[in-house]
Amino acid sequence: MHAGNEAVDLEFIVQDVKEGEKLELRLWLRMLSTTKLVSQEIRRRLRSEFGATLPQFDILAQLYRERDGLRLGELSKRTMVTNGNVTGLVERLEADGLIVRETPDGDRRVTVAKLTPRGQEHFSAMAAAHESWLRDLMTDVDAKAIRLLLSNVSDIKKSVTRHLTEGATEPN
Amino acid sequence: MHAGNEAVDLEFIVQDVKEGEKLELRLWLRMLSTTKLVSQEIRRRLRSEFGATLPQFDILAQLYRERDGLRLGELSKRTMVTNGNVTGLVERLEADGLIVRETPDGDRRVTVAKLTPRGQEHFSAMAAAHESWLRDLMTDVDAKAIRLLLSNVSDIKKSVTRHLTEGATEPN
Repeated sequence: MHAGNEAVDLEFIVQDVKEGEKLELRLWLRMLSTTKLVSQEIRRRLRSEFGATLPQFDILAQLYRERDGLRLGELSKRTMVTNGNVTGLVERLEADGLIVRETPDGDRRVTVAKLTPRGQEHFSAMAAAHESWLRDLMTDVDAKAIRLLLSNVSDIKKSVTRHLTEGATEPN
Repeated sequence: MHAGNEAVDLEFIVQDVKEGEKLELRLWLRMLSTTKLVSQEIRRRLRSEFGATLPQFDILAQLYRERDGLRLGELSKRTMVTNGNVTGLVERLEADGLIVRETPDGDRRVTVAKLTPRGQEHFSAMAAAHESWLRDLMTDVDAKAIRLLLSNVSDIKKSVTRHLTEGATEPN
């Protein structure tokens, strides 16, 4: 019931289900457990190689793509980090010299966070490492299978998007 | 940059990457964004149809499979809910009549949580709904593609498991 490298493998839930039954549930549990496994490993490597957390990485990633910076509220929305936590994370990254906070146009109600040149350089190294970790983790799977997965997971995503609860626009 | 039903689609990160490059990173972001989309929808439906949260559902699922009950520490490990939070969740589920806590063999240091008959019935209905939601969400994808995904995601999972950091046995 316990996989070697994570607390529990979720797929145990369908261990007694007959072959060929509940395929969608099986697939969901397999995708979810794989995603958890990869997320854990990325957290581990971010911490050991960069002393960083996943929310910090996510914040830097968002700001790296928006060179003019982002309002803290927008940053919160894009990273799914709560407003309160974004403030703390941004303060920490500012103390590390990776981010600056600015008040554009003298409107003191608005705070925009942006990367410093050092922050850009630092994130660029993290992003390259992140991409190479994923290549390493998936190295036993050939490019053809990965392309097929890209296409088939896309079909799942489209189907899910089409069948979401009507009018549900807010994430939890 | 914003998908209709979630705050942000993570795949925007690779929007400028050339076709055919960084396939593993693309696949990771696609799997992660799909998993988030489905998780959000499951949370939404658990709340609206059963007034339940995902951690509550996870706890009930674990106990449903272990009719003799589980120690709270084991329950925490299996659900990836912290020890402190497990206690609060179990108290709430006990107040709802779905769970009982017992002290087996008179050893007062050990607390075991188990489902009541009502808890078993309730979870059974939730599990059936959960399975049907997944079937509905993936309904546009045919069984052949789902079987192929099951096999290919399994290959990804095996590759990831083989290439995890040595000696990393603890989840984050």
